[in-house]
Amino acid sequence: MDLHKRLSELGLTLPAAPKPVAAYVPAVSSAGQIIISGQLPFADGKLLAVGAVPSAASIEQAARAARQCALNALAVADAELAGDWRRFVRILRIGVFVASDATFHEQPKVANGASELLGEIFGDAGRHARAAVGVNVLPLNASVEVEMTLAVS
Amino acid sequence: MDLHKRLSELGLTLPAAPKPVAAYVPAVSSAGQIIISGQLPFADGKLLAVGAVPSAASIEQAARAARQCALNALAVADAELAGDWRRFVRILRIGVFVASDATFHEQPKVANGASELLGEIFGDAGRHARAAVGVNVLPLNASVEVEMTLAVS
Amino acid sequence: MDLHKRLSELGLTLPAAPKPVAAYVPAVSSAGQIIISGQLPFADGKLLAVGAVPSAASIEQAARAARQCALNALAVADAELAGDWRRFVRILRIGVFVASDATFHEQPKVANGASELLGEIFGDAGRHARAAVGVNVLPLNASVEVEMTLAVS
Repeated sequence: MDLHKRLSELGLTLPAAPKPVAAYVPAVSSAGQIIISGQLPFADGKLLAVGAVPSAASIEQAARAARQCALNALAVADAELAGDWRRFVRILRIGVFVASDATFHEQPKVANGASELLGEIFGDAGRHARAAVGVNVLPLNASVEVEMTLAVS
Repeated sequence: MDLHKRLSELGLTLPAAPKPVAAYVPAVSSAGQIIISGQLPFADGKLLAVGAVPSAASIEQAARAARQCALNALAVADAELAGDWRRFVRILRIGVFVASDATFHEQPKVANGASELLGEIFGDAGRHARAAVGVNVLPLNASVEVEMTLAVS
Repeated sequence: MDLHKRLSELGLTLPAAPKPVAAYVPAVSSAGQIIISGQLPFADGKLLAVGAVPSAASIEQAARAARQCALNALAVADAELAGDWRRFVRILRIGVFVASDATFHEQPKVANGASELLGEIFGDAGRHARAAVGVNVLPLNASVEVEMTLAVS
């Protein structure tokens, strides 16, 4: 697996991994797993979607934002692996939190933005377990947050 | 451990496992764990409880729905184990999300529907860690969603 | 690592671990991990913060409550380890759920109450992955709930 080559084939590039902050870290490695902290849909320093779905952000916007969250999680994993994706085994799980109007019931459509990206990039090794839920609000008013766990050798 | 025999003793049967969808899978096995995707309270193709607790679904309805979510998670595990529960070690964790009115504070009573089923079925091996929280809304307007992790040999 | 000595240096004491309840347990150990159930900010039998942030509980109150949740999680881990922290490797992950007004976007500030305590106590071994989200309501109307996973040998 050469992630960078595969991303290039898909016309994607990996964003810069978010910097560690004092209180917690973007990723932890232990016992064959990399646990990635919850990622917001930052692209070039701006959130791709803010506010509740669908009143403030459309389903399509939020799904693109979820895709960006997943890409940001992969950037964190890339830093954790020091770019060596030969150790990558598979994506294990993503947790997707969607800022939702109380009448919005299509969180899976938003979460698919993340899930489908992982499938495009990794094929079978990108197939993962998932929990997708609605919440009333997220950090920085983001429309979606995605956490991820990967299996590595 | 013969799950099917035990369920039969309890007057329960395992539902059909939900089919994999394109973007993610119902379960992932890795390093002695089976991670089950978030399950909704489907029984015979219908949700057992919809809407926020308690205004739209009673605590009792939601607890029965949480129980169904857990049963559905076991159906997924059964498929992942190809029916061979001799590999089962224990339930590790469930995450329970309860669609809640903003004034509802008894999410644990709802989550107990899932936890108590696991105790009835597995005894000590069913005792698990748990996080139970309220959310404003869930996929398909379900009243509850449960994710599960199992230890296997 | 002698947790009790370190806490004493910080002027902290470990609360009594919450008692197991029938339906689930405070902690589960498996394959080098201790998984701690979601902890509420109980101190001396009372919740340190109740209601949504910031209308019912201030950010500062909620951050102190998150700190208490983390301390309670360590009390659970202490019981699971029978007080022997030589087996402790590191904190892997915390999940932080913040009861939030729909206009509140600073969940990370609340979650830092938990994260910073772990840094103070454990140094590098306290650096963890984190997911912090808002929810409309939590069990017992608590302002915050924290779950934790630790690596042990």
